[in-house]
Amino acid sequence: MIEDKQPQRTPISELGEFGLIEHLTKNIELKNESTKYGIGDDCAILDFGDKQTLISTDLLVENVHFDLSYVPLKHLGYKAIMVNLSDVYSMMGKATQVTVSIALSNRFPIEAVEELYEGMRLACKLYDIDLIGGDTTSSNLGLVISVTSIGEVEKEKAVKRNGAKVGDLLVVSGDLGAAFMGLQVLEREKEVYKVNPNSQPDLSGYDYIMERQLKPEARKDIPTILNSLEVQPTSMIDISDGLSSEILHICKQSEVGCNLYEDKIPLDPTVISACEEFKLDSTTIALSGGEDYELLFTISQDDFEKVKGNPHMSIIGHITESGANLITRAGESIPLKAQGWNHMK
Amino acid sequence: MIEDKQPQRTPISELGEFGLIEHLTKNIELKNESTKYGIGDDCAILDFGDKQTLISTDLLVENVHFDLSYVPLKHLGYKAIMVNLSDVYSMMGKATQVTVSIALSNRFPIEAVEELYEGMRLACKLYDIDLIGGDTTSSNLGLVISVTSIGEVEKEKAVKRNGAKVGDLLVVSGDLGAAFMGLQVLEREKEVYKVNPNSQPDLSGYDYIMERQLKPEARKDIPTILNSLEVQPTSMIDISDGLSSEILHICKQSEVGCNLYEDKIPLDPTVISACEEFKLDSTTIALSGGEDYELLFTISQDDFEKVKGNPHMSIIGHITESGANLITRAGESIPLKAQGWNHMK
Repeated sequence: MIEDKQPQRTPISELGEFGLIEHLTKNIELKNESTKYGIGDDCAILDFGDKQTLISTDLLVENVHFDLSYVPLKHLGYKAIMVNLSDVYSMMGKATQVTVSIALSNRFPIEAVEELYEGMRLACKLYDIDLIGGDTTSSNLGLVISVTSIGEVEKEKAVKRNGAKVGDLLVVSGDLGAAFMGLQVLEREKEVYKVNPNSQPDLSGYDYIMERQLKPEARKDIPTILNSLEVQPTSMIDISDGLSSEILHICKQSEVGCNLYEDKIPLDPTVISACEEFKLDSTTIALSGGEDYELLFTISQDDFEKVKGNPHMSIIGHITESGANLITRAGESIPLKAQGWNHMK
Repeated sequence: MIEDKQPQRTPISELGEFGLIEHLTKNIELKNESTKYGIGDDCAILDFGDKQTLISTDLLVENVHFDLSYVPLKHLGYKAIMVNLSDVYSMMGKATQVTVSIALSNRFPIEAVEELYEGMRLACKLYDIDLIGGDTTSSNLGLVISVTSIGEVEKEKAVKRNGAKVGDLLVVSGDLGAAFMGLQVLEREKEVYKVNPNSQPDLSGYDYIMERQLKPEARKDIPTILNSLEVQPTSMIDISDGLSSEILHICKQSEVGCNLYEDKIPLDPTVISACEEFKLDSTTIALSGGEDYELLFTISQDDFEKVKGNPHMSIIGHITESGANLITRAGESIPLKAQGWNHMK
């Protein structure tokens, strides 16, 4: 979807594969000292000196991970980068480089690919990331985006999922469920549009949840804040599939359990009101909605005073010997289930 | 295509995404000292000490890069890894890790994904590569494979495309055109099969060219041989799109020209006979066929004696001030054109 209603349409065949890559990457500047050589050869060359290197990769497929009927390509490009950087931040790393591969069919003109790249470049600019390589190819299958991100971390300082200890506090950044509710609004508008293509979408009052869905921000700030507070988390993961699923990953890999307190789950007021409007339970949405790209982590109880009252994070529970449970507002204990985005269903 | 005619078919939904990843990656052992942590978290953790890190990525799309009607999935998995490792070797690097992302539709049962992974695992085993992460997702679009490879190289020793100097010798490893001729045989058999599904393909005599197409090997040995000969190439690239296209990359990025001698282009006898059978010009096939995954490089004339007569490489021309030309057997000079696999056409 290109916002300009009368866009210029240049077929990709006019440039060819090499021409397209050259065209899209000609203005890319390198910012990280660790980037010795970027786009233009068989490999990029990186040098991390005495740091450790982090690598993460994601594949995004049209109509599985995104719907171009309501996601502008520029936003999609931005989000594709964010989703991937989030994985580096969730190891307490500093994201430094990305590679981007795109397969696209002939229905996309060059201008559409430019829109997509513009979003990616903006994300890279705002997060100080070097775009160092990739692959561009045709597809008779719609649009596929593959992003690999690379980051650095001090030796032995990467925080994995498997270090949570009994008694640790369970902490989450930001608030949850907004991205999912933004999606509900977009899907409702799509249905309205199908019935009446002349209708104008009314999205006022939904700004926050729309932005959380269309233009999520990875939590680059959280590793920095935790370092400045001198808090080294014992385990960490980013919330892509939903709080419930991510807690279960930590519990399984750390071989522990947890109590999560329903009344501690951070929700934005607009999420609560959207849930009421859509007749959805806000706790369920926070647990299973996904795509929040907040960070979930555990810290030692000794660090409680350092984190208490911090506006960027909420303590939502604690680690137990076994059994991952939600403690409801009524005081009931209910086993947590992974109800995240299971794309394989 | 699974070779067992009565295969077990287990739907992927039975395992779910997390289950599938766990199932596919459970026996992966790490071999490289630089791999500190592999699959199982948001990122892999690598440590290259005082080496530099190389990163390369490729995206393979069904019916663009491969045709499952004649490519067994195990071979496809093997080839997907080779294609990518080849980029690391073409910088004179040592490939150490790969990440693999796969999008696949429900028409593939778990056993099919296992076949694909088996080929990838075999490639990793034979080339001492650690599979450190990836992403598995569904697709309504057929099969898409994204591979990112990581390698290491001594500081300042990576060989790029842009270092060729006037007077340097142009050298190629192995022989050319076989992969393309293997594809011609496969496509002919597919047409025969369409007309008569009971026909048995007769592929005797085509073993070498079939293997070059279906199970190519990346030239891991060439950087080792050159190091042992104490030859540091001035530029290097791998031949994925065809000799002509790769020579033009080196000339363009090094801002030089070259003379390529038709009679020096290494051809296997089976390629020559297949070209006669298919009424194709073998020079054209070597120049434009692609998918050979041999290495093309330039060396200083001072290194001539070290390389002369080496069975793994052929001197095919030399670098000039400007103009990339083929010098034919008749002594004519014809400008080289990039006629490689342009997937954007």
